[in-house]
Amino acid sequence: MKIQRVEAIPYTIPMKKPLHFASGSVHQIDHVLVRLTTDDGLVGVADIPPRPYTYGETQAGVVALLETLFSDALVGCDPLDRGRLHAALDRTVGNHATKGGVDIAIWDLIGKSVGQPVHRLLGGYTDSLRVAHMIGFAEPAAMVEEAQGFRDEYGIAVFKVKVGRRPLSLDIDLCFALREGLGTDVELYLDANRGWTATEAVQVLDATAGLGLTYFEEPDDAREILGRRRLVQLSRIPVVADESVPTLGDAAREIQTGGATALSIKTARSGFSESQKILAYAEALGVDVIMGNQIDSQIGSTATVTFGAAFAHSSRRAAELSNYLDMADDLVAEPLVIRDGVIAAPTVPGVGVDIDPEKLARYRTDGRN
Amino acid sequence: MKIQRVEAIPYTIPMKKPLHFASGSVHQIDHVLVRLTTDDGLVGVADIPPRPYTYGETQAGVVALLETLFSDALVGCDPLDRGRLHAALDRTVGNHATKGGVDIAIWDLIGKSVGQPVHRLLGGYTDSLRVAHMIGFAEPAAMVEEAQGFRDEYGIAVFKVKVGRRPLSLDIDLCFALREGLGTDVELYLDANRGWTATEAVQVLDATAGLGLTYFEEPDDAREILGRRRLVQLSRIPVVADESVPTLGDAAREIQTGGATALSIKTARSGFSESQKILAYAEALGVDVIMGNQIDSQIGSTATVTFGAAFAHSSRRAAELSNYLDMADDLVAEPLVIRDGVIAAPTVPGVGVDIDPEKLARYRTDGRN
Repeated sequence: MKIQRVEAIPYTIPMKKPLHFASGSVHQIDHVLVRLTTDDGLVGVADIPPRPYTYGETQAGVVALLETLFSDALVGCDPLDRGRLHAALDRTVGNHATKGGVDIAIWDLIGKSVGQPVHRLLGGYTDSLRVAHMIGFAEPAAMVEEAQGFRDEYGIAVFKVKVGRRPLSLDIDLCFALREGLGTDVELYLDANRGWTATEAVQVLDATAGLGLTYFEEPDDAREILGRRRLVQLSRIPVVADESVPTLGDAAREIQTGGATALSIKTARSGFSESQKILAYAEALGVDVIMGNQIDSQIGSTATVTFGAAFAHSSRRAAELSNYLDMADDLVAEPLVIRDGVIAAPTVPGVGVDIDPEKLARYRTDGRN
Repeated sequence: MKIQRVEAIPYTIPMKKPLHFASGSVHQIDHVLVRLTTDDGLVGVADIPPRPYTYGETQAGVVALLETLFSDALVGCDPLDRGRLHAALDRTVGNHATKGGVDIAIWDLIGKSVGQPVHRLLGGYTDSLRVAHMIGFAEPAAMVEEAQGFRDEYGIAVFKVKVGRRPLSLDIDLCFALREGLGTDVELYLDANRGWTATEAVQVLDATAGLGLTYFEEPDDAREILGRRRLVQLSRIPVVADESVPTLGDAAREIQTGGATALSIKTARSGFSESQKILAYAEALGVDVIMGNQIDSQIGSTATVTFGAAFAHSSRRAAELSNYLDMADDLVAEPLVIRDGVIAAPTVPGVGVDIDPEKLARYRTDGRN
């Protein structure tokens, strides 16, 4: 089995409603579908969500990298030479989402070639993941109503609240409104996307101490290293590193040096192979892991379920799987189903995604077909 | 695919010559072959080497555990539910070699069921591993001659020297004799199997400083924690934790708290699944890894090659693969080949071992057939 063709298909789908958070807004998703075809006719796919404001990748840049350096590294190679392929891809610096997508597409080929769900090849620990839904900036009443709606419709009982605004009272009041409106049987945690300083973040922790919030993600900029460490020492809830830890080395640096006490793992940026290493590192140290969402389509969320449900340590907590609900459409042939607050792990060979050719033709922006 | 039968076959093979080291001697190997048979007729095998003086397992105890608690946990289950099976096995404390063997036999089934070498499913990084040979206690001239013989016959250029005797001059003189006799193009490292105190170990380091030794494994007892930390701080070469780190948690504890600066990974005690986690942890921190040998048969050494060659970080250094050369016989149908100092990774489906039924009948000690 040799990879014969690497396709990079840019596509755009509008958001049903724009998503606002401290580090930006998303009005439409400009992703790249990577498609690897082998000489024996297998097709491996993955979604690549470039996030210029977080990791510096762009849609056009992803396409260019896939069509040049990465094609050179992949074409003619066997997907089962995974370790060797990564060594070749890693000669190019950065570009985490592109590398992550290629890794997932390689795993998709491996799973399809051996006729097994990748979820089971990776570890097959559990059949499903609980869903944590992310709620973006809005008026408190609207955010409570939105969360209530997700609970009623999907059974979701874990919410990640986007915060990081000034004055701090905006978000402190929001936390009180959510706890009051949703009751105590709902789990709430915060993500400030580095919107605050360390000092402000400690003020928010103190003001919300009685609300039972469980995690605090990227409260401030992790590069302001002394402030971050002071914050981590003062926080009674784990401080989650997300955009500061795209790789294994970054995760180790932040945890070892007191810059964070929990890790977000996103398959969109570290694929399955690197994510598995980060997960093992976290398990070794008893560091909590949250499976995160890079504003993933259903293709990306399926990959997260495939990975997260495969291991004990990644399936303990609810995973952020439902951003796709804010998108107007998707490329998958079969929509994901959230029922009783969980998404089931795929049981078909490969990562578990089937692309709808008509939808792909409608949303691709390269004019090809 | 369901596991239908768990067989635990005790067998004994004499050593060609006894192996002597600081924590004991081995005159014959009393191992257990674990054999998992599925309802569709696949057979997964692994070797379990109990080491009572290191980990507390005995041949009879391994058989008993496999035939009772572990059979209950495994029979009727799909090997692809690996994560779930481990959760069940881990309810029994300790018994690392038994758990490691079961994990390898499960991987053997997975590889055979999908028709792929496990080496490639794990990562497929490289085609072979360099071999490091271990030389046990003997007169210096005999040890030099033995090493020279292994270099001439197999192309082996890396030797692990068993030390840990008193007076210290015995082993210091030995190191000088080996360096002088073998020249500078041979890599030498030490393993004292905790035979010395930390203070003695530092004396040995100072006395051998000019000899270019590369690693110092378990110089003293890791449980003497202050002495060990003082030694680690004073050593200019990595101090390798081996018997003190049978699990992921142990490895993390020793590395994080300054008890070691390198790790020995043995598939005989942590299988493939746990070994993969330990390896990722080590890679995250830039901690060197040596693939170790639990006085493994060719079955065990094949498993080590399958794992070690699958990843970049485990294949950097020579692996301890050749203890089987000291055994009078083995159970495998096709002997391992060491040529130009390397052993090739298996290319057949599964872990890569074929058992010779006649040899198994000859060496098994349970009177069955």
